[in-house]
Amino acid sequence: MAIITLTTDFGLKDPSTGAVKGAILSELEGVNIVDISHNVSPFHITEAAYIIKNAYSSFPKGTIHIIGVDSEITPENKHIAIQLDDHFFICANNGIMSLIAAEIKPQKLVEVNIHNAIETNFPVLDVFVKVACHIARGGTLEVIGKSIPEVKQITKLNPFINDNQDQIIGHVMYIDTYGNVVTNISRKIFENIGKGRSFTINARSTSFTTIHESYSHAIDFNSPKDNREEEGKKLAIFNASNYVEIAIYKSNPHTVGSASTLLGLQLMDTINIKFNS
Amino acid sequence: MAIITLTTDFGLKDPSTGAVKGAILSELEGVNIVDISHNVSPFHITEAAYIIKNAYSSFPKGTIHIIGVDSEITPENKHIAIQLDDHFFICANNGIMSLIAAEIKPQKLVEVNIHNAIETNFPVLDVFVKVACHIARGGTLEVIGKSIPEVKQITKLNPFINDNQDQIIGHVMYIDTYGNVVTNISRKIFENIGKGRSFTINARSTSFTTIHESYSHAIDFNSPKDNREEEGKKLAIFNASNYVEIAIYKSNPHTVGSASTLLGLQLMDTINIKFNS
Amino acid sequence: MAIITLTTDFGLKDPSTGAVKGAILSELEGVNIVDISHNVSPFHITEAAYIIKNAYSSFPKGTIHIIGVDSEITPENKHIAIQLDDHFFICANNGIMSLIAAEIKPQKLVEVNIHNAIETNFPVLDVFVKVACHIARGGTLEVIGKSIPEVKQITKLNPFINDNQDQIIGHVMYIDTYGNVVTNISRKIFENIGKGRSFTINARSTSFTTIHESYSHAIDFNSPKDNREEEGKKLAIFNASNYVEIAIYKSNPHTVGSASTLLGLQLMDTINIKFNS
Repeated sequence: MAIITLTTDFGLKDPSTGAVKGAILSELEGVNIVDISHNVSPFHITEAAYIIKNAYSSFPKGTIHIIGVDSEITPENKHIAIQLDDHFFICANNGIMSLIAAEIKPQKLVEVNIHNAIETNFPVLDVFVKVACHIARGGTLEVIGKSIPEVKQITKLNPFINDNQDQIIGHVMYIDTYGNVVTNISRKIFENIGKGRSFTINARSTSFTTIHESYSHAIDFNSPKDNREEEGKKLAIFNASNYVEIAIYKSNPHTVGSASTLLGLQLMDTINIKFNS
Repeated sequence: MAIITLTTDFGLKDPSTGAVKGAILSELEGVNIVDISHNVSPFHITEAAYIIKNAYSSFPKGTIHIIGVDSEITPENKHIAIQLDDHFFICANNGIMSLIAAEIKPQKLVEVNIHNAIETNFPVLDVFVKVACHIARGGTLEVIGKSIPEVKQITKLNPFINDNQDQIIGHVMYIDTYGNVVTNISRKIFENIGKGRSFTINARSTSFTTIHESYSHAIDFNSPKDNREEEGKKLAIFNASNYVEIAIYKSNPHTVGSASTLLGLQLMDTINIKFNS
Repeated sequence: MAIITLTTDFGLKDPSTGAVKGAILSELEGVNIVDISHNVSPFHITEAAYIIKNAYSSFPKGTIHIIGVDSEITPENKHIAIQLDDHFFICANNGIMSLIAAEIKPQKLVEVNIHNAIETNFPVLDVFVKVACHIARGGTLEVIGKSIPEVKQITKLNPFINDNQDQIIGHVMYIDTYGNVVTNISRKIFENIGKGRSFTINARSTSFTTIHESYSHAIDFNSPKDNREEEGKKLAIFNASNYVEIAIYKSNPHTVGSASTLLGLQLMDTINIKFNS
C-alpha cells in the first residue's frame, strides 16, 4: 500500500488538509496518508526542512512526501518532483530540498509540467496530489516533468568554521515543543573539528563543557531525589537528530519556562563552540 | 473501504477524538477515518460549516461525514442524517446543514430515532458513531430515523445586494491559519452582480480595485527582487473556495502580522463592494 | 489489522510523531496507527493518564497503546509492557499505569529488556516501536521483558473522605478544551458516599446542589428562548468519563471565558462535596 506523507503550514483548523486527503482518497483506493506536521510556521522553509529531514528516513523506501510550504508556483519557484534516498519528494523549487538533503545526490529530478497554464492558488490540491498519485500508481517522473540538473541551493545556513579549525560558529535552527533549542551544528561537524578535544559551548550568557547522549544522562541519580539537581537543569545534548541542542531538563514552555525563554535563545541566535588546544 | 470523516470542536488534547475513533474501529474492521478538523471554535457552527463545505466534496462519493459541533440533543435540536450530493452527513439539526449546502436538495433526510431515551452527554460517541457505522455497512437512513421535509434554516448570513444591483455588502465569514480574511461573497455572486464592471472593495480603511486569481499573481516578478513589493503586500483574491478573500502576501499572524490583525478585520466585520456604472 | 495508538507530549509540530509513524510502517505493512493525543502538557503524567483512561477502552480488544510521556529510561523509571483489560500498554514505569488503571489487575506485566545498553534520547522511536510491533505480530511479552510483580504506584491523587462519611474532598484533575473543570471525584465514589442524600458542591466561591446528566439537561427549554438562562450558565455534571465536572454551558475559553477562567479553578484546586444528614 502506497504511503503519502504531508508536511504543510496549513495549520489544523482550515479545510485545506481535509480537502487534500479527500482528493488523494478519490484517486487512490488503498493508500496510507500520514501527517508529518501541519504546524510549520507560515512560509518557513527552514523549519519545514528540519522537520522533514528528521522524519522522512524512518518511513519505508518508496514513500511519497508532499511538502506544502511556500508552494505557489512563481516565475522564480517552479514545482519539482525528486527521487532521492529511495524516497519521493514533491515541493516547490524554493531551496527547501537543498536544506533537507544537501549531501545526497538525487536519483531523479524533474520540473513538473503537467500544469499547462493551470492557474491555481492551491497547488498542493491541484498539482501535488496528482503528482503523488501518479507516483503511487507506479508512474515515472519523466511522464509528469522534464529533467533538470539540480535543485535551487540555499547554503548560507551552514555553520562557520574558523581557519584555525578550533571554533564552530553556528546558530539556533529550530525550537522544539519543549522549548529546547536545536543548533545547526551536527554531531559529525562537531566530531570532525573537535577531534576529541575539550571544549566550551557559549550560548548567550550560558556555557557548557559537556554534551550528553541523553537528557537523563545529565542527572546524578546517585544523589538522593530531594537533593539532586533535576528539573530545570540546563544541559547540552546531541539530540535524536544528532544536532547539538541546548535543553532544560523536563522543561515546559507554558509553565516553568524553557531553554528558549529562560536562556533567551531565539531562532538564528549565535551558538559558539571553542575547542581547547 | 468506507471513509468516515470527523469535524469537531473537541480540540486535539482531550480523550474525545480518540474515544470516537476507537468506537468506530470496534464496530468496523476496514474503515478509513479522516480528520477534517478538530479545532473548530467551541459551538461555532458557521465556522464548522465553512470548513466542511470546502473539504467534503474532495472526498469520494459515499463518504460519511460526522459533525461534532453543538451536537447535544435538545428539544430544539434533534439529530439528523442526510444524504446530499452523494455524501452522508450526521449532525445536530441546529442550522449547520443549511450553511453547508443551502443550494443543494437532500436526496434523503431523516431525524435519527435510534436513541429512545438514551441520555448522553457525548452524542458523537453514543449516537453519531452508531449511525455512521450503520451507513458504512450499507444500511439505509430509513432504518435509523424518520423522514423529515427539510433542515433547520439559517439565512441571515447571506450578503446583501442593493436595489440598484451595484453594491454587495458582505461580511467576514472566516479567518484562516495565515490570518487571511474570507468574506461571504462568492465568486458567483460577485460575477452575477458585477457583470464585468470595474469596482472598489472597501474593507475598513483599505480598498482594492482588483481581485487576483492567485496570491503570487499580485506580485510583479519582472521588477528586481530587492526592489519589488512582495511580503506584506495587501491583496484581494478569489480563494481556493471561490470566495473573495482579503490577504497579506506571505503573512504570519505570529510574527509580522496578518490581514486580520494589520487591517483590523474581525469575524462579522462588513466588506463592501461597489460597482461603477 | 493491528491497531497501535499514540499518546505523547510531542506536540504537533516537531518531527517526532512522523518519525515514530514511519518506523512503525517500516516494520508492519498492515497496521492502523491512531493518534489519541500529542498535546499532553510536557512530562505531565496525570494529564496523560486521564486522557488514556478515557479513550483506550473504546478501542477493540488487543489494541496496543504507546505512551510517550516522561519516557526516558532512568535508574528509577524502567520501561514496561503490560497486558491489562485485554489491551496492551507500553510506557515508562513512572507511576502512570497506576493512574490509568489502579483497580484493574494486569494480565501480564514485564520490564522491557531488549535494550542491552542502547543509549537513546528517543525511547519511543528506538524501544517502544519495537515492542509494539513485536506485540502486533503476535509476539509474547515474555520474549521482550522479564516479569515484575507490579507497577509503580501513585496514590496521593485520590479524593479524601472524612470519618463521618459525609464529605468528599477532591481536586481539579483536568481542564478540557472548553475550559470545563474535571474533578477526581468519580460517580462511583459520589454515589457510594452520598447514598442518595442531598448535597452541596463547593468550588471556590461557587456552589451547586444538583449534578446533571447532560449539559442541556441544565437548561429550561420550556421558557422562551430570549428569556432563558442558557449560554454562560454554571452547572455541575457527571461528564462522559463519569467524573464530577464543573462546566459553563457553551463556554469558549478564547472568547467569553470558561469554567476554569470565570470561576478561577486551576489544576489541583480543591473541590468539596458535603452531604446533608
